[in-house]
Amino acid sequence: MTTQIGMLLFPRLTQLDMTGPFEVFSRLPDSQVRLVWKQAGAVKADTGLTMLADTGMAECPQLDVICIPGGPGVAALMEDEAVLAFLRAQAPGARYVTSVCTGALVLGAAGLLQGKRATTHWASHDFLAALGATPVNDRVVRDGNVVTGGGVTAGIDFALTLAAEMASPAVAQAIQLAIEYAPCPPFNAGTPETAPPEVLAMAQQRGAGMRKDREALVARVAARL
Amino acid sequence: MTTQIGMLLFPRLTQLDMTGPFEVFSRLPDSQVRLVWKQAGAVKADTGLTMLADTGMAECPQLDVICIPGGPGVAALMEDEAVLAFLRAQAPGARYVTSVCTGALVLGAAGLLQGKRATTHWASHDFLAALGATPVNDRVVRDGNVVTGGGVTAGIDFALTLAAEMASPAVAQAIQLAIEYAPCPPFNAGTPETAPPEVLAMAQQRGAGMRKDREALVARVAARL
Repeated sequence: MTTQIGMLLFPRLTQLDMTGPFEVFSRLPDSQVRLVWKQAGAVKADTGLTMLADTGMAECPQLDVICIPGGPGVAALMEDEAVLAFLRAQAPGARYVTSVCTGALVLGAAGLLQGKRATTHWASHDFLAALGATPVNDRVVRDGNVVTGGGVTAGIDFALTLAAEMASPAVAQAIQLAIEYAPCPPFNAGTPETAPPEVLAMAQQRGAGMRKDREALVARVAARL
Repeated sequence: MTTQIGMLLFPRLTQLDMTGPFEVFSRLPDSQVRLVWKQAGAVKADTGLTMLADTGMAECPQLDVICIPGGPGVAALMEDEAVLAFLRAQAPGARYVTSVCTGALVLGAAGLLQGKRATTHWASHDFLAALGATPVNDRVVRDGNVVTGGGVTAGIDFALTLAAEMASPAVAQAIQLAIEYAPCPPFNAGTPETAPPEVLAMAQQRGAGMRKDREALVARVAARL
């Protein structure tokens, strides 16, 4: 049996949330990675990259792995009953229910993080509790069959972790070698704790407008859970 | 003036070679990232992901940054006179001539690595010398305006390095923070030196068939340089 891995491809997603894990998952033996949206066809990321979804929700088979990437488009998904119903219908039969970055907020909105330890992008971390999760400040967090990754590039670490479990540590290591994943960032600014204060302030200032909208949205969604 | 960054999007590229740097470049201020192919339209990666090129070679303006990702499709590009002519015409006016992964072999085939220090995916490293380059075993290598990155995920380190130079270290750090790039691989198998011997053997065995074709191709291309 081919393992069915479904990644949600939605308007204004952050493409690297999806394309990082996709590169890992698509190298797993006996697996098929589907890009799922309401219908097959073109979907545009927040940065303008257009990619094609290959599977519409209505014709999507039961998935073994559900993975929700993040990005600004998450806000619309959190109140999209068709998307939430799709996730609620798929989750009970899936081996893994997963997210990368703010994709966790969509899992939360679908009620799938109730009582679960989970992570998300650092700037959205404090929204997890309102959605029923216990926030954990780790790059990859596992609670039962719910596996969540941190912001954007954490998706690569997340996918290798899952690959080791789904296939074997040797297969995960062979994929890591094939994608030469021996990261060497030129700066140490990848977390709020290590970034220079002025860089963190810049990032927080930029996100301030979106944050207010997001707070109202999370409160609205949480009231319905 | 908007900085024009052009990434080549070609059939059977390794999508993460492109999508990693794309995520960084597309967050640079006053910049436009173009996905360039022979004509605008759908292009399919080696792992099946379909993305849309937005700029045909004929209508592509002078680029400030040329970036060639790698992947199995590189083999066809290395003997594609239209692609090589495009690169040779663009390179003299570009501020940076760059590649990720085996994209370096295309730069080499176009004669743009003559006498330059360069890197590529570890499994193709020994092809660089035949194409006129001095191979350097680093994740990001710079020689004048030629900047090359190592295999696949090295593209993220490469792009942050370039972002610091094109914009500023603070801007590069803000992008690193936004994409939460504080990598934490679950294994230490990302290079031939650190991978377990049996994992390296598995990777080498898998690439053995392609390697023979690649050797013949590089010899043919090198004879024309």
